[in-house]
Amino acid sequence: MRGKVAAEIRRSARWWHGLPVVLMLAAAAALAQAVDPLPSWNDGAAKARIVAFVQAVTQPGGRDFVAPADRIAVFDNDGTLWSEQPVYFQLAFAIDRAKAMVAKDPTLASRPVFKAVANGDMKSLVATGEKGLLELLALTHAGTTSEEFAQAVRDWLRDARHPTLKRPYTELTFVPMRELLDYLRANGFRTYIVSGGGVEFLRVLSEELYGVPPEQVIGSSIKTKYEVRNGQPVIVRLPEIDFVDDKAGKPIGIHKFIGRRPIASFGNSDGDFEMLEWTTSAPGARLGVLIHHDDATREFAYDRATSVGRLARGLDEASQRGWTIVSVREDWRRVYAAR
Amino acid sequence: MRGKVAAEIRRSARWWHGLPVVLMLAAAAALAQAVDPLPSWNDGAAKARIVAFVQAVTQPGGRDFVAPADRIAVFDNDGTLWSEQPVYFQLAFAIDRAKAMVAKDPTLASRPVFKAVANGDMKSLVATGEKGLLELLALTHAGTTSEEFAQAVRDWLRDARHPTLKRPYTELTFVPMRELLDYLRANGFRTYIVSGGGVEFLRVLSEELYGVPPEQVIGSSIKTKYEVRNGQPVIVRLPEIDFVDDKAGKPIGIHKFIGRRPIASFGNSDGDFEMLEWTTSAPGARLGVLIHHDDATREFAYDRATSVGRLARGLDEASQRGWTIVSVREDWRRVYAAR
Repeated sequence: MRGKVAAEIRRSARWWHGLPVVLMLAAAAALAQAVDPLPSWNDGAAKARIVAFVQAVTQPGGRDFVAPADRIAVFDNDGTLWSEQPVYFQLAFAIDRAKAMVAKDPTLASRPVFKAVANGDMKSLVATGEKGLLELLALTHAGTTSEEFAQAVRDWLRDARHPTLKRPYTELTFVPMRELLDYLRANGFRTYIVSGGGVEFLRVLSEELYGVPPEQVIGSSIKTKYEVRNGQPVIVRLPEIDFVDDKAGKPIGIHKFIGRRPIASFGNSDGDFEMLEWTTSAPGARLGVLIHHDDATREFAYDRATSVGRLARGLDEASQRGWTIVSVREDWRRVYAAR
Repeated sequence: MRGKVAAEIRRSARWWHGLPVVLMLAAAAALAQAVDPLPSWNDGAAKARIVAFVQAVTQPGGRDFVAPADRIAVFDNDGTLWSEQPVYFQLAFAIDRAKAMVAKDPTLASRPVFKAVANGDMKSLVATGEKGLLELLALTHAGTTSEEFAQAVRDWLRDARHPTLKRPYTELTFVPMRELLDYLRANGFRTYIVSGGGVEFLRVLSEELYGVPPEQVIGSSIKTKYEVRNGQPVIVRLPEIDFVDDKAGKPIGIHKFIGRRPIASFGNSDGDFEMLEWTTSAPGARLGVLIHHDDATREFAYDRATSVGRLARGLDEASQRGWTIVSVREDWRRVYAAR
C-alpha cells in the first residue's frame, strides 16, 4: 500500500514537472506587461501611438501582424538619438581635428578653411561655403586607414566636451530614444541607424551608445581603396564623396543596404522626410515619428528657421500623412541621463 | 509515518525536477556531435580543416574563441554557391531579357549588341566588347523600378533552363555548400553573400536558395533614384554603375556594408583573392577556402585558362597563405540535389 501511494505521488509529481516553467513564463509575461517599457516618456498621444503600433505588429494572428524578419525600424541619428546643436557633433570633431592638424603642421593654415578653424573664427568658416566645408571634411576625414580614423574618433569622444552643456558628447544621447530602441528590439525588431553623418564615425559609437552593431549603421561615406602595405592589407580613406545619405538618399541607402522596406521610421528634420515617406507609404501598419525640439530649458528649441535640423515640411504634412510629432517638452520626462 | 514518507518522496522528486532537462541537453549535445553536419562532404583534409576551425572558434574559453557577433562568414556566389558555366547565370538572364525586349520592340535590333543577342550569335556578342556588354547590362537591368526588376528576375528563374544541364538554374546550387551555410549558422555565424553579381538580382533568390536574407547580400550595383509617382514613392534603376563588388572591391564592399572583418571566406576564383586575403590577414583563427572546379563529369572542369571563374593566383598562393583548396571531384560526395 505504501509502495502504491509512493508510486502515485511520484506519478503525480512527474505530471507537475512542466508546470513551474509554465507558471514562471506566465508570471514573466504578466510582469513584462506591468513594467512600463518607456518610463522616460510621459503618458500622452505619442507614447500611446508607439505602444499601440508595436502591439499591433507583434500580435500573432492579428490583422497587422508582421513577421520578425520584416520588423525593421530605422532611426536618424543627429537630433533623433542625440543632440545636434549648436553644430552637428561630427563637425565639432572635424574642427577639433583640423586645429590639431594645424598645430602639428602650421603650413596648413594657408588654406582659408583651416585658418578660420585655427582662429576659432566661425564666421570665416561659414564664409568658405560648401567648398570650404567639403575641404575641411576631406582633409580631416581622409588620408588615414580606417583603423587610424576609428582611433581618432575614439580619442575625440573620450576627451571632447560640448561647448555649452560641458559634458562629453557621449552623454548627450536621448534616454527616451534609447528606451525606445530597447523596447523595439525586445519586440523582435532590428534597429538601424540611417544618418546623414559619416558611417565610419557612427560605427565607432553605435554599439556602445545605442546597442546598434556596425552592420546596422547606414551613413554618408567617402570612397576607400584596398591596399597591401608591407604584406598587411589596409582600407585607405580617400578625399572623395561616395554616397550622401540624406533626404532622398535615405530611402536609396535603405534599399541599397537592407533591401527591405522598414515598417517604422524615426527622424527630426526635413532631411528625414523621404525616409518617413518611403516607410509609411507601403500597405500595412506603419509608424512615422518626428522629434520636435521645443525645449529650450532642458535641450534646444528650433525647427523652421534653423540651419541645422530644419523641420518645416514635416510639421506641415505630419497630420495628413499620419505621422506622430513627439514634443521634447511635453512627451519626454527626461532628456539626458542624470550626471 | 505515511505522511512523512510522502513528504520525503515529494522533496526528493522536487530535487530531481531539473535533472531531465540537464540529461536531455547532454543527450542533444551528444547527438549533435554524432550526426555529421556535412554529409555531402567526403572525409578528407578540406572537411577536417573546416570542422576544426568551427570547433576552435566556438569553444568557450578556448584560445581561438570568437564571440558570436564577430562570427562573420562571407561567400562568393557564382562558382562558389552555384555553377557559373558556360556563362554567369545573370548574363543568361540579361540575354533572355534582351531577346524578349527585341521581340517586343524590333527597332532595338539596330544596336549591335541586341542584334547579336536576338540572333543567338555569341561570337558577335563577344565582339561588342566591354562596351557592348555594359550596354546590354544597362538596358536589361535599368529603366524599371526595383519592384518591377525583382519580378522580372522571379519570372526568369521560374521559366529558364540551363543550356546543357536542362534544369532550372535554381536547382544548380551546390548541396555541400548549402550544408556548410547551415552548419555555420547552427554554430552562431552570420553568413553573407559577397558577389560580383548584381545585388538586386541576388536578393531575389538568396533567401530561398541559401537562407541568406537580403540585408546580408553584398553585390555590384547600379545607381538608383528616389521618385514619387502618383503619390507613391518608387526606387528607379539608372543605367549607371554605382559599385563593382569584385577583386579589391570585395573587401571594400565588406567594409562598407558590414564594417567588421570576416573570420571565414569562401570563393572560387581570382576575383575572390582580395576577399580571402583581407579575411585571413587578421590575427586569430581564420579560414580561407577556394573551390576548385575539377569535375567535368558531375559539373565543369576549369581554372587557369577560363574566361569565367579564372583561378590561377589562388592555386599558386593557397599553400603559403594557409588557404584550403576544395576539390569538387575529391571532396564533394554530391554536387547538385537529386532530381
